[in-house]
Amino acid sequence: MQAKHTIGHLIDGQTVLTGERAQAVYNPATGVAEKRVLLADQQTVAAAVASAQAAFPAWRATPPLKRARVMSKLKQLLEEHADAICQLITAEHGKVLSDAMGELQRGIENIEYASYAPELLKGEHSKNAGPAIDSWSEMQPLGVVAGITPFNFPAMVPLWMWPLAIACGNTFVLKPSERDPSSTLLIAQLALQAGLPPGVLNVVNGDKEAVDALLMDKRVQAVSFVGSTPIAEYIYATGTAQGKRMQALGGAKNHAIVMPDADIGQAVSALMGAAYGSCGERCMAIPLLVAVGDATADALIEGLKMEIAKMQVGPGTDARSDMGPLVTRQHWEKVRGYVAQGVAEGATLLVDGRKVAPPKGYEDGYYLGPCLFDHVTPAMRIYQEEIFGPVLGVVRANSLQEAMDLIDAHEYGNGTCIFTRDGEAARYFTDSIQVGMVGVNVPLPVPVAYHSFGGWKRSLFGDLGAYGPDGVRFYTRRKTITQRWPSAGVREGAVFSFPSNQ
Amino acid sequence: MQAKHTIGHLIDGQTVLTGERAQAVYNPATGVAEKRVLLADQQTVAAAVASAQAAFPAWRATPPLKRARVMSKLKQLLEEHADAICQLITAEHGKVLSDAMGELQRGIENIEYASYAPELLKGEHSKNAGPAIDSWSEMQPLGVVAGITPFNFPAMVPLWMWPLAIACGNTFVLKPSERDPSSTLLIAQLALQAGLPPGVLNVVNGDKEAVDALLMDKRVQAVSFVGSTPIAEYIYATGTAQGKRMQALGGAKNHAIVMPDADIGQAVSALMGAAYGSCGERCMAIPLLVAVGDATADALIEGLKMEIAKMQVGPGTDARSDMGPLVTRQHWEKVRGYVAQGVAEGATLLVDGRKVAPPKGYEDGYYLGPCLFDHVTPAMRIYQEEIFGPVLGVVRANSLQEAMDLIDAHEYGNGTCIFTRDGEAARYFTDSIQVGMVGVNVPLPVPVAYHSFGGWKRSLFGDLGAYGPDGVRFYTRRKTITQRWPSAGVREGAVFSFPSNQ
Amino acid sequence: MQAKHTIGHLIDGQTVLTGERAQAVYNPATGVAEKRVLLADQQTVAAAVASAQAAFPAWRATPPLKRARVMSKLKQLLEEHADAICQLITAEHGKVLSDAMGELQRGIENIEYASYAPELLKGEHSKNAGPAIDSWSEMQPLGVVAGITPFNFPAMVPLWMWPLAIACGNTFVLKPSERDPSSTLLIAQLALQAGLPPGVLNVVNGDKEAVDALLMDKRVQAVSFVGSTPIAEYIYATGTAQGKRMQALGGAKNHAIVMPDADIGQAVSALMGAAYGSCGERCMAIPLLVAVGDATADALIEGLKMEIAKMQVGPGTDARSDMGPLVTRQHWEKVRGYVAQGVAEGATLLVDGRKVAPPKGYEDGYYLGPCLFDHVTPAMRIYQEEIFGPVLGVVRANSLQEAMDLIDAHEYGNGTCIFTRDGEAARYFTDSIQVGMVGVNVPLPVPVAYHSFGGWKRSLFGDLGAYGPDGVRFYTRRKTITQRWPSAGVREGAVFSFPSNQ
Amino acid sequence: MQAKHTIGHLIDGQTVLTGERAQAVYNPATGVAEKRVLLADQQTVAAAVASAQAAFPAWRATPPLKRARVMSKLKQLLEEHADAICQLITAEHGKVLSDAMGELQRGIENIEYASYAPELLKGEHSKNAGPAIDSWSEMQPLGVVAGITPFNFPAMVPLWMWPLAIACGNTFVLKPSERDPSSTLLIAQLALQAGLPPGVLNVVNGDKEAVDALLMDKRVQAVSFVGSTPIAEYIYATGTAQGKRMQALGGAKNHAIVMPDADIGQAVSALMGAAYGSCGERCMAIPLLVAVGDATADALIEGLKMEIAKMQVGPGTDARSDMGPLVTRQHWEKVRGYVAQGVAEGATLLVDGRKVAPPKGYEDGYYLGPCLFDHVTPAMRIYQEEIFGPVLGVVRANSLQEAMDLIDAHEYGNGTCIFTRDGEAARYFTDSIQVGMVGVNVPLPVPVAYHSFGGWKRSLFGDLGAYGPDGVRFYTRRKTITQRWPSAGVREGAVFSFPSNQ
Repeated sequence: MQAKHTIGHLIDGQTVLTGERAQAVYNPATGVAEKRVLLADQQTVAAAVASAQAAFPAWRATPPLKRARVMSKLKQLLEEHADAICQLITAEHGKVLSDAMGELQRGIENIEYASYAPELLKGEHSKNAGPAIDSWSEMQPLGVVAGITPFNFPAMVPLWMWPLAIACGNTFVLKPSERDPSSTLLIAQLALQAGLPPGVLNVVNGDKEAVDALLMDKRVQAVSFVGSTPIAEYIYATGTAQGKRMQALGGAKNHAIVMPDADIGQAVSALMGAAYGSCGERCMAIPLLVAVGDATADALIEGLKMEIAKMQVGPGTDARSDMGPLVTRQHWEKVRGYVAQGVAEGATLLVDGRKVAPPKGYEDGYYLGPCLFDHVTPAMRIYQEEIFGPVLGVVRANSLQEAMDLIDAHEYGNGTCIFTRDGEAARYFTDSIQVGMVGVNVPLPVPVAYHSFGGWKRSLFGDLGAYGPDGVRFYTRRKTITQRWPSAGVREGAVFSFPSNQ
Repeated sequence: MQAKHTIGHLIDGQTVLTGERAQAVYNPATGVAEKRVLLADQQTVAAAVASAQAAFPAWRATPPLKRARVMSKLKQLLEEHADAICQLITAEHGKVLSDAMGELQRGIENIEYASYAPELLKGEHSKNAGPAIDSWSEMQPLGVVAGITPFNFPAMVPLWMWPLAIACGNTFVLKPSERDPSSTLLIAQLALQAGLPPGVLNVVNGDKEAVDALLMDKRVQAVSFVGSTPIAEYIYATGTAQGKRMQALGGAKNHAIVMPDADIGQAVSALMGAAYGSCGERCMAIPLLVAVGDATADALIEGLKMEIAKMQVGPGTDARSDMGPLVTRQHWEKVRGYVAQGVAEGATLLVDGRKVAPPKGYEDGYYLGPCLFDHVTPAMRIYQEEIFGPVLGVVRANSLQEAMDLIDAHEYGNGTCIFTRDGEAARYFTDSIQVGMVGVNVPLPVPVAYHSFGGWKRSLFGDLGAYGPDGVRFYTRRKTITQRWPSAGVREGAVFSFPSNQ
Repeated sequence: MQAKHTIGHLIDGQTVLTGERAQAVYNPATGVAEKRVLLADQQTVAAAVASAQAAFPAWRATPPLKRARVMSKLKQLLEEHADAICQLITAEHGKVLSDAMGELQRGIENIEYASYAPELLKGEHSKNAGPAIDSWSEMQPLGVVAGITPFNFPAMVPLWMWPLAIACGNTFVLKPSERDPSSTLLIAQLALQAGLPPGVLNVVNGDKEAVDALLMDKRVQAVSFVGSTPIAEYIYATGTAQGKRMQALGGAKNHAIVMPDADIGQAVSALMGAAYGSCGERCMAIPLLVAVGDATADALIEGLKMEIAKMQVGPGTDARSDMGPLVTRQHWEKVRGYVAQGVAEGATLLVDGRKVAPPKGYEDGYYLGPCLFDHVTPAMRIYQEEIFGPVLGVVRANSLQEAMDLIDAHEYGNGTCIFTRDGEAARYFTDSIQVGMVGVNVPLPVPVAYHSFGGWKRSLFGDLGAYGPDGVRFYTRRKTITQRWPSAGVREGAVFSFPSNQ
Repeated sequence: MQAKHTIGHLIDGQTVLTGERAQAVYNPATGVAEKRVLLADQQTVAAAVASAQAAFPAWRATPPLKRARVMSKLKQLLEEHADAICQLITAEHGKVLSDAMGELQRGIENIEYASYAPELLKGEHSKNAGPAIDSWSEMQPLGVVAGITPFNFPAMVPLWMWPLAIACGNTFVLKPSERDPSSTLLIAQLALQAGLPPGVLNVVNGDKEAVDALLMDKRVQAVSFVGSTPIAEYIYATGTAQGKRMQALGGAKNHAIVMPDADIGQAVSALMGAAYGSCGERCMAIPLLVAVGDATADALIEGLKMEIAKMQVGPGTDARSDMGPLVTRQHWEKVRGYVAQGVAEGATLLVDGRKVAPPKGYEDGYYLGPCLFDHVTPAMRIYQEEIFGPVLGVVRANSLQEAMDLIDAHEYGNGTCIFTRDGEAARYFTDSIQVGMVGVNVPLPVPVAYHSFGGWKRSLFGDLGAYGPDGVRFYTRRKTITQRWPSAGVREGAVFSFPSNQ
């Protein structure tokens, strides 16, 4: 019975159970460790890379249209297996099933984009760059590329990476989070079923040993990473020092500005989801609300409190739950600590989610109710640091400029948004703010799959964002060919010389 | 029993059996009329247009991604129903099943391209076109657009048109060929099943009355047509005079040039398919082979004769058949007339397909074996006119330039190709030849779905080609917005004035 | 002395004085005919086309970068000769010198865009469109193209056309307005000086005879036209019937909507220029102002009347003049007739420009002061028809939707704008309105040179707008090449066979 | 008199003579130190960065068209001052004047490309990314960016960087080579004259101290570097560790393959320039010739020896000179050392340029004649290392595949080319070779300015190449805005509520 709960790797199209070390995988709704995952050692990683390397030449030469078709087929399979995938997400991550379905859907959008490969890989062709000289650019694949992904979106974030990388002609080694690897693996298996040749996509589970093995492997040409800023910085520095193409997405502390002319009801409704959805364990969550004017702040708080009062916290599998548990006990303790810290720092705790009792039968789950602070200030740790929990802080500002100065002074620059009806306020904000993804009356401005995801400042290390056009550029290398042909060849002399020579 | 053989229209999501006139639909393999098709009158066409008009506002406002997903789903359904569709094609057109599958496959590629709509519809955005002034272009749909399609590709040519038009946000009225409408209708029904709202795609069967009703209807914004050049010219002139956006693709007489340095074996093999595939009833068929040098001509003819000798002519449903019957008895007589004409004009008839006997049990089918002429010259009608049958003529030339001059002097400019190994000859040919679609060692250079189809000279009336980037441009209208916002609004005065007003 | 006042043609790099017929060219500020212009007969037009045809092969093969450099050099020359050009514009058209400088500047922007030719002409390249098959598109020039341009922008409108056409590799025949041809000719001469080879740009002056000669000449591949709608429709129909690529821009009746939340001061200021600038002789002028709400209307009218009271009408060469004369006596009479008509139809004439006396010494000039009507309604001719004079009509509406319905019911759809501070109102308007060029707080939303100019409905006949990306598409023809190479050639057998053969 | 020979910095629009340290600048043709250049200390660098930082906000808000126009004007000034610039290049670098003119011309092409800024900076706009939600991407400038450039192209390589960076809205600090800074400075001064506001472009001269100051300055957002591979690697690692966007172009060892079917005469002619032009001091020079087949090798060598015999070595200012001196005495010794090394390693020295005597009157110049080795093998240092001198080595191979394997085994992957007439050989080579810039019968396939420059492997550190589309992407940061507007605002309630409130 133990065997069926052991999660292994997917290498060269086969499930592989190598690695001496393993780690428990918990269900956050119950606090029970129901499975264990093997942690890849260097040899296992090397085997995955070797498989990818071997699969590269044939995959690279496969026409983009054929590669794209595997993506279309995979989309179809994911739709058919959506329930099974979401059950795995909820069982290991804790989020409610509707959230799981939401993330899978965003992941599928990235597969759809990858299926545009024939269009996306068009190069530029210049006739007569010089007299009778033509020149064109080809966007060629890199070879073996790797992805290292976080626990909070076990389906979506890997799907930001490998479908596009593979559609561009690369082969891939994915190391998902060891906390919730099962949905990731199931999706990879469906990709094989959709027609990916063995070795084109490999999955290794593991921890820092596996990460370092990928970073040090000379055959790995590029690495995409999503996680916290300190790790992102380490990954980026280590990989670039190895001569690899790197992109490492880190943390966030996204502010929402609400202007006095905003539709307050719409803002409250939008912010509830942005602050507490998926327990705030999203790099595009809104943990800070900057109200311009005290009247605005008061109206927002009144609305938020009313909405919070209606929220249900419980296991993600229960359709009545609005919010599930946090991902691990350790993280649960850390978030509770931040709440205490906020109180200690002098912020006003209007709603204390720590008082929310776990649902009956789930007493060991990692539940925490929504928390709401007023009078948060930039000097506080709960302002400065990424909490990644259901904690929303209200900051009060006197003008749009003051609100924007706060944002620009923060070390992160991932996402932000403004609520207003005024065209000029929106234009000034979107133009000037030092943040990569900006919403206007849109609380979580995650770019759609055919644009690109990318924060600024310490939220992203690298030149190019994830997925979309930036993703295509990241997963391809430009080759420019300049061509002319010698004259006086077949054309002029054709009739007389050639037939007799052959 | 008669009822089930009557083919009607598809309007507003329903099968409609209106129209007083009808016409027999024959099976070319047997010569038997197994079905009849209703011919739409003006009221029927008007009803279809009205349905499309009513469906437009909601469909236009549907996000491109959602529209694209209907295309993905349709692709899936077409793959599932491919056999049924191909049986219908063969039963009404006559081509062998593998050919039918080939055309369906090319049609599916256009559906795949239409599913890229979110990428294809991106507009251009210019920040600071002036000081604090932004400007962008939106590619908006036109409204109701129509397509009129020929008998020779009942699945593929309609799929060049409506999937892209619809993915761009338009609604559509299709009038397919009345000779083989059943596969076209089945595909349209599958599109509804894939999620197209009623009225977004309508199909009316009919003849000139229906065509004229579409051309004269003020609500129809644009028409795409594929057919013969005289009709294309009429359609284009009539539609443009009505203020419609028009594209009308007409006839062809495609030449293949074979240079002395070509891989003769590859050329022979390629030309067999290009000349005789689908009985030559393709606007991208190769009915003329220009051999540069007599040695080249002799080698090609020797190879062609050997290959022709192996060919089997028979019903398209028989897997042993290489070539099926012609589409109608009338066309069969016309093609045979051209063969006689060629002999009368002095060309050397090396292989006379008229001698091929119909297979046993199919004595009334419209069969004609492959014909091969040598010494064809530009003065002959079999050189000048589009035969649309299994008749290949060899022209002898002394140089590449002489061969190219022949092509440039012909009224058509649809497709052409060259067989050579020489970079310079290929570059000179592709640069200079007055033809829209050019192959190098590729006999039927039909552009892939993510490029565009378009002949030059009298092969296309209109500015923009079919499908691909040109198709997107044809089915959309540019709107350019220039925007600035008055200052001194919400931003500066925010805190003080607004809250008190609310 | 007569000789130096005769304006001829520019053919093959030479000034040509052919044509038996001639026409007087008046100075609208004085009413004096100071010059005469020769009107080309068919032979003259044919000579210009022949010159362009002869220049085409070499110009087509000139690398785009070299063609672009002529544009850069021309820009420099136009800046150096700006005063001389503007003097000619004012002397023949009448507009004030600052307006002339404005139009020249907009024309120069189109030259700048044409100088991007190497970027604009990049084709799309698809590696592995099939196995070892590559495919790419080339945007090739058409050959000889023609332009027919109106009196109101003798510098700018021709510069919308020929610089881009020529930068794309075409050669050009321009027929400017016979009322004010001198600035057009001077610019063309500077283009030759900038390095255009003789025959690449030709200018013929003339009237309908010349126009028809261009439309009927088989060698002319495409024609761009700007003028009134009836002529545009004739030109378009005649040209398309000849198999030419055509674009014909016609008339306009642009409405500005002012919402109650608009910055009224900014709106008044913007509308003054848009209504009366260049005497309203602009296809992007604003002759109709739709005020939403009576309070809005009253505030606007108050502001407009104050501004109108400050306006100076006088010769364009006088720096104190805000507005010059109309272009011809005939047009002066026509516009005055419209004013009388408006009064007769029941509109309230708030300001009657007919009472403005011509300045001393210019009694025979075609002067008309600014006119302002209130209570204009859709039933009136001054609402329906393009007046092309300094006549602004105020229409009162009760809602944005009512204002928009007015616009959508009008036959023209060239330009429009809205004045508001509200993001949602602007978005709804720009999305839905059936007009091609839309401003938000921008009164004359003429697209910048790197976007494209194009009205909807009866303001434009053709698929593609003028200049910008549409212009590039209009002046080029897509050629798609599909290429594969036979194997077993030089690569494998290289060492052994070739050296001994050579 | 000393003063006029001291070369300072250009900061905030002023020449600045700060820095305690200085270094002699030699004329390589004479070996005489005619000038000295100040070496910036940290304070000087900090002042330049501060100036750039201060200039950024206004420059960023300047419309791209205005920024582009400075580039057009600069182009004009460079053409007017071309002789003065080239004299400075030759006086400090040594290359012949025609070479200097060639590099200036390539630099001007990059300015032309930068002048396309309005087109290049267009973002992507998606209408209805969701229901009534629009999303678009803006490519915003980074802020202060820096460039560090090598001695071998003092005019061209800086012009790869700053014109495009500045046209994109950034401000710039350039540190050119301290060996030949004068032409770089003159060009920068002309840029100010063309209209760049003070601080937008600053130039600091210096050595490692200045480089490190730039790399460590937090205000510098990005650095472009061109130089040798070890330095490139250091620069890239240091800058990325500082969180900067980095691109560092390093060394090269470009191979030319000549196939047996090549036009040998054309190949010889092309290779002479590619091997010996500018003394081989080019990262796109061809120092290795791989002949396929001994007959090919023998024919090439015969041709090369004949051409070498005609070459004149002398001062760059002498129009009879084909090749000038090397850049410094140190480098001259190093290259001579490589020649000796090649002989010691067993390569056959066919032509020994060391025997060429310096021209009379230039005995202290750093002259070295063209050297030609046969039988060079991959084990030799003259094969492995970048010599950067007039030394061409012939390698003999038996097949195309063997020749390509050599190239792919080399650590560099900058440029390469093949000489052949065969389409298939060229296609196989260009597809497979692991090199970023590939020529077919083009010896120095430096991409034109509207494509991008970028080697592979250890020739480039970073994701994006220099200039062209990659340059635009490098010098801009993507910002994605997602926008919707609350309804029930101005539109519906317009008439009644607003006027009374105002």
